Amino acid sequence: MKIIVTGTGTIGAAVAAAAAQAGHDVVTVSRSAGDEQADLTDRASLDALFARIGPFDAVASCAGEVFPAPLAEATDEQWQQSIQSKGLGQINLVRSALPHINDGGSFTLVSGILGDEVTPAMSLGATVNGMVEGFVRSAATELPRGLRINCISPSVLAESTEYLPYFPGFAPVPAAEVALAYLRVISNPYTGRIVRLHRTD
Amino acid sequence: MKIIVTGTGTIGAAVAAAAAQAGHDVVTVSRSAGDEQADLTDRASLDALFARIGPFDAVASCAGEVFPAPLAEATDEQWQQSIQSKGLGQINLVRSALPHINDGGSFTLVSGILGDEVTPAMSLGATVNGMVEGFVRSAATELPRGLRINCISPSVLAESTEYLPYFPGFAPVPAAEVALAYLRVISNPYTGRIVRLHRTD
Repeated sequence: MKIIVTGTGTIGAAVAAAAAQAGHDVVTVSRSAGDEQADLTDRASLDALFARIGPFDAVASCAGEVFPAPLAEATDEQWQQSIQSKGLGQINLVRSALPHINDGGSFTLVSGILGDEVTPAMSLGATVNGMVEGFVRSAATELPRGLRINCISPSVLAESTEYLPYFPGFAPVPAAEVALAYLRVISNPYTGRIVRLHRTD
Repeated sequence: MKIIVTGTGTIGAAVAAAAAQAGHDVVTVSRSAGDEQADLTDRASLDALFARIGPFDAVASCAGEVFPAPLAEATDEQWQQSIQSKGLGQINLVRSALPHINDGGSFTLVSGILGDEVTPAMSLGATVNGMVEGFVRSAATELPRGLRINCISPSVLAESTEYLPYFPGFAPVPAAEVALAYLRVISNPYTGRIVRLHRTD
């Protein structure tokens, strides 16, 4: 399969490595690194990206930023940027890729543990994750041509040492395990699923 | 209680009537009608609104627009407007009201059946409802001073005859029943709850 991986952070790098190791053809995308450059918040740059790349089989979305600010302190700008980046940005990605993806292809987006579980500064993350998961569950019913869409919801990453203090008492998940979940939903007939890499009980 | 009701549509009118009948002091707000005017998408107009009104006990949010467009046809503008209005607009409302609401007061937002149930053109609604419900569940854990927040998720309204054709086979809910649910969560110690006025099984 030809798999487009957006985001060259910890998850994106792990997904690209796992997909390449499984024998897939990987194209990495980010704002300033990777094989191709594009900006999730700029619809025209996404349209141009997919027109350049040509046909492909899967999009693995591993990009998008959310500010970990407490509700009482978060600014209008932090709200707007979080929604436009990890929220609407991933929706833009799907909408721009739609005319170019092969029949039976798949989209895999990313949400996260915030919203399912409780931390002291979670409202931006919970809001944006709710947005992404709501989109995935509904888009799965609207996609044409046998296309599929799923969402990976990781716990805090074991590798993200700067975020671990925000998740006291949470079991971190290694990025390689998150990458496996991406490969699992890309390679099997999952659709409309939120795959949680954390305990919710 | 002094209750601020935003939105003078079918739900807003029913909530305002039910709250007044229960003996509460009601202030109605909309863009161009009601006792006070404000725009959900304009943070400054919301800040000015709550500074004008003075202390109050509850905000019942009954406003916000989402386009019922199929995923393949929805435009960038329809996405952006839906997210900024019913999504971030209701979050703005809470953030602007926060410094003015009395201790122990409550916020009640509105989502909807799309996202829980399946219709042919649901992705914008499901995305925005997911955003609002994600916010409500998380904000409930972050609000200070005994403040509470809940969300009402109505089925299509019996009175909204123009929307009924988009919900074939769905049982509509009368606006008066939705208004009761608002009064219920305002008047009892509910918090972080999504109250669904539709069957999800």
